[in-house]
Amino acid sequence: MAKVGDRVRVESKDGVHEGTVLPSPENQKNLLMLKLNSGYNIGIKLDKSVKIKVLGTGTKAEPLPTIIQKENKSLPSISLIATGGTIGSRVDYKTGAVQTLMKPQEFIANVPELAQIVNLKKISRPFAVWSENMSHVEWQKIAQEVAKELNAGAEGVIVTHGTDMLHYTAAALSFMLKNLSKPVALVGGQRSSDRGSFDGALNLICAANYCKSEIAEVSLIMHGEDADTYCLAMRGTKVRKLHTSRRDAFRPVNEMPFAKIWKNNFELLNSNYKKRTNEKVVADTKFEPRVALVKFFPGQSPDIIDYYISKKYKGLVIEASGLGHVPIDTKDKKLGWLPKIKKAIDSGMLVCFAPQTLYGGLNQFVYAPARQLHDAGVLYLGDMLPETALVKLGWVLAHAKKPVEAKQLMLANLVGELNPRIPEEAFLY
Amino acid sequence: MAKVGDRVRVESKDGVHEGTVLPSPENQKNLLMLKLNSGYNIGIKLDKSVKIKVLGTGTKAEPLPTIIQKENKSLPSISLIATGGTIGSRVDYKTGAVQTLMKPQEFIANVPELAQIVNLKKISRPFAVWSENMSHVEWQKIAQEVAKELNAGAEGVIVTHGTDMLHYTAAALSFMLKNLSKPVALVGGQRSSDRGSFDGALNLICAANYCKSEIAEVSLIMHGEDADTYCLAMRGTKVRKLHTSRRDAFRPVNEMPFAKIWKNNFELLNSNYKKRTNEKVVADTKFEPRVALVKFFPGQSPDIIDYYISKKYKGLVIEASGLGHVPIDTKDKKLGWLPKIKKAIDSGMLVCFAPQTLYGGLNQFVYAPARQLHDAGVLYLGDMLPETALVKLGWVLAHAKKPVEAKQLMLANLVGELNPRIPEEAFLY
Repeated sequence: MAKVGDRVRVESKDGVHEGTVLPSPENQKNLLMLKLNSGYNIGIKLDKSVKIKVLGTGTKAEPLPTIIQKENKSLPSISLIATGGTIGSRVDYKTGAVQTLMKPQEFIANVPELAQIVNLKKISRPFAVWSENMSHVEWQKIAQEVAKELNAGAEGVIVTHGTDMLHYTAAALSFMLKNLSKPVALVGGQRSSDRGSFDGALNLICAANYCKSEIAEVSLIMHGEDADTYCLAMRGTKVRKLHTSRRDAFRPVNEMPFAKIWKNNFELLNSNYKKRTNEKVVADTKFEPRVALVKFFPGQSPDIIDYYISKKYKGLVIEASGLGHVPIDTKDKKLGWLPKIKKAIDSGMLVCFAPQTLYGGLNQFVYAPARQLHDAGVLYLGDMLPETALVKLGWVLAHAKKPVEAKQLMLANLVGELNPRIPEEAFLY
Repeated sequence: MAKVGDRVRVESKDGVHEGTVLPSPENQKNLLMLKLNSGYNIGIKLDKSVKIKVLGTGTKAEPLPTIIQKENKSLPSISLIATGGTIGSRVDYKTGAVQTLMKPQEFIANVPELAQIVNLKKISRPFAVWSENMSHVEWQKIAQEVAKELNAGAEGVIVTHGTDMLHYTAAALSFMLKNLSKPVALVGGQRSSDRGSFDGALNLICAANYCKSEIAEVSLIMHGEDADTYCLAMRGTKVRKLHTSRRDAFRPVNEMPFAKIWKNNFELLNSNYKKRTNEKVVADTKFEPRVALVKFFPGQSPDIIDYYISKKYKGLVIEASGLGHVPIDTKDKKLGWLPKIKKAIDSGMLVCFAPQTLYGGLNQFVYAPARQLHDAGVLYLGDMLPETALVKLGWVLAHAKKPVEAKQLMLANLVGELNPRIPEEAFLY
């Protein structure tokens, strides 16, 4: 019987696979997990038809190499906040065992180049949560931790995070960190550290370089291309995950990235940023969780709005079609959205439209139906990403004293979430 | 007082604008609609602060030039189905008046080059509906009309359509047209025909070229770049609107386009297509409308699934995060999705996951939470676009005799909606 760490050849009805046996997931002992030579993991259901041949026996997990980093006071001190995800752990490439990196030395051991760039003074781990399980509660904790570190003297902060919903957290920190005076870099890893294609090392190195820059903004730092060459620093409110697995999955939307960052180089692409100051950072984290995102689809019943009214939601972001449309004047009256939208607005709900296309901006003045929706009180959010709009809506509703103020805040450009002049080259950058 | 067609200079609190007065929308007579020199229309609320100076008086709308097209029997005969949208109308550039193009001669008059490429035999207009108002009822009518024309001898069919939801219709026709034996080209216009940047002419010309090709597939034919140079023929199930206003807003996702098409040139990029045959086309249009698309967002309550159960929906496509995740094992048990998903599946609902990232494919074998969801019965739809998945789900549920057959059909590659080998260069193409 093959053991964890063994190299095996497996014949099943899915074909023939060679790889290293990984630990099976709990409660799924009949699943043989295999790390293929390509670095991908697959699961093979063990039944009678499966034939396993052991090609070589495994070895024990190697201890993480320890590099004692002497504090290098000539380098700027930064802090790292680890929240979970691929990048904050280390997978032993022989056994598949996962170790969570807890100490600065462990991060440095995993990515030794960091010690040449910054003085990584402190690592805090306020929680360890899968990216898709994050909500405003975690955003608030991260924002508080970032503010604390910056106010305690860190020249910048790196936040490591699972990648699934990383762009939402980037948007949340952008709104929650008031008077931000230093760089904040969010990074994740699309590939685990046992794989030749591990991207976390370069992402961390580029994030450290970003922390030494003058850009006092919340940025997401991830690969600029699938090759392991450089990263992009992308504004937290103007970035989105656009691929499930590529290393360059995160792309800037409707704005150029702040910079291209290599291990040893830094090219500024967009000078529309706030420079470092000496201000005290304030974690202004109040958030109204009764907000929802609704992606409109053809033939959709507008009754979904009734549902959110009945659940006492305070705000909705509707991903509208084209320049900002949902059905009006339909033959089948049940499919017309205007009466339900008016009802929601009358009930005190803030109804916002954001572009379902992601790229480009809404325009309520081109077609008559959009003008009707606009006149009914729908807020047209220009080129704001729907994801950013949802986060902003929760933040704004917790901060505005009156509905009119909430509307003004939603339409105002608070932290670069609106870009009235989208450059040509930003499309599919 | 300025009249429709007059050139005016308007000072308002939004600034100074020069342009031509367009007809005001109905019920909004206090809105001055202006066509700017840039070609964009804007609406200016008329109040006391607005100053209007007439720079020149307007002229009457010019009649559409009529070109009597002699039937050119040496060219292949095609049919055109007009369904509404910018491309099927003509805006008089002096008055802004909109004329709907009804006859082949009118389309030819608007785009004279068409007469050199094809013999445009017939135009049918089964209805005129804004793109965002389309639902399965219109998809069915279009499919029936396309099948009728192809079986009556047309060498290809062009369908003109508003652009907002054009990609949904493209996916619907892909599933509904069985035994498709000739090219079907869907086209729209991002800019109206009174603007210098009118894109509909090139789109129609390239669609006509596509109708002469060997590619017996439903394709969307739109600009390949923002300049007026060439179009792309993109598979109906692998295309999405990714920009609100650019002429090259439609992009292929997870697959290379079939071809680049110029006015006088045709370059094949992807030979994975069905060739022309002599089969009779069948419009197989049955559709189950009780299907919905839910885009997952952080902190979202899974109660939304209860809502769709209570409304007796038969299928759900959830836009999951990353490789296919929603929250499992959350600290706050109310935020865990697994119990609700199990309840939905137990009630007979088909629950599918599609990638929220749009690009890339899901993989249920990398992380344990995804394996749990998969084992609970969630269908992981690989690299299928969420929009295509929704349309397919409605079509499959109306065709499968048993749940097990519905599952098999959803996971099978029926018309190119799944691509197990996504080429590198297809990302952000």
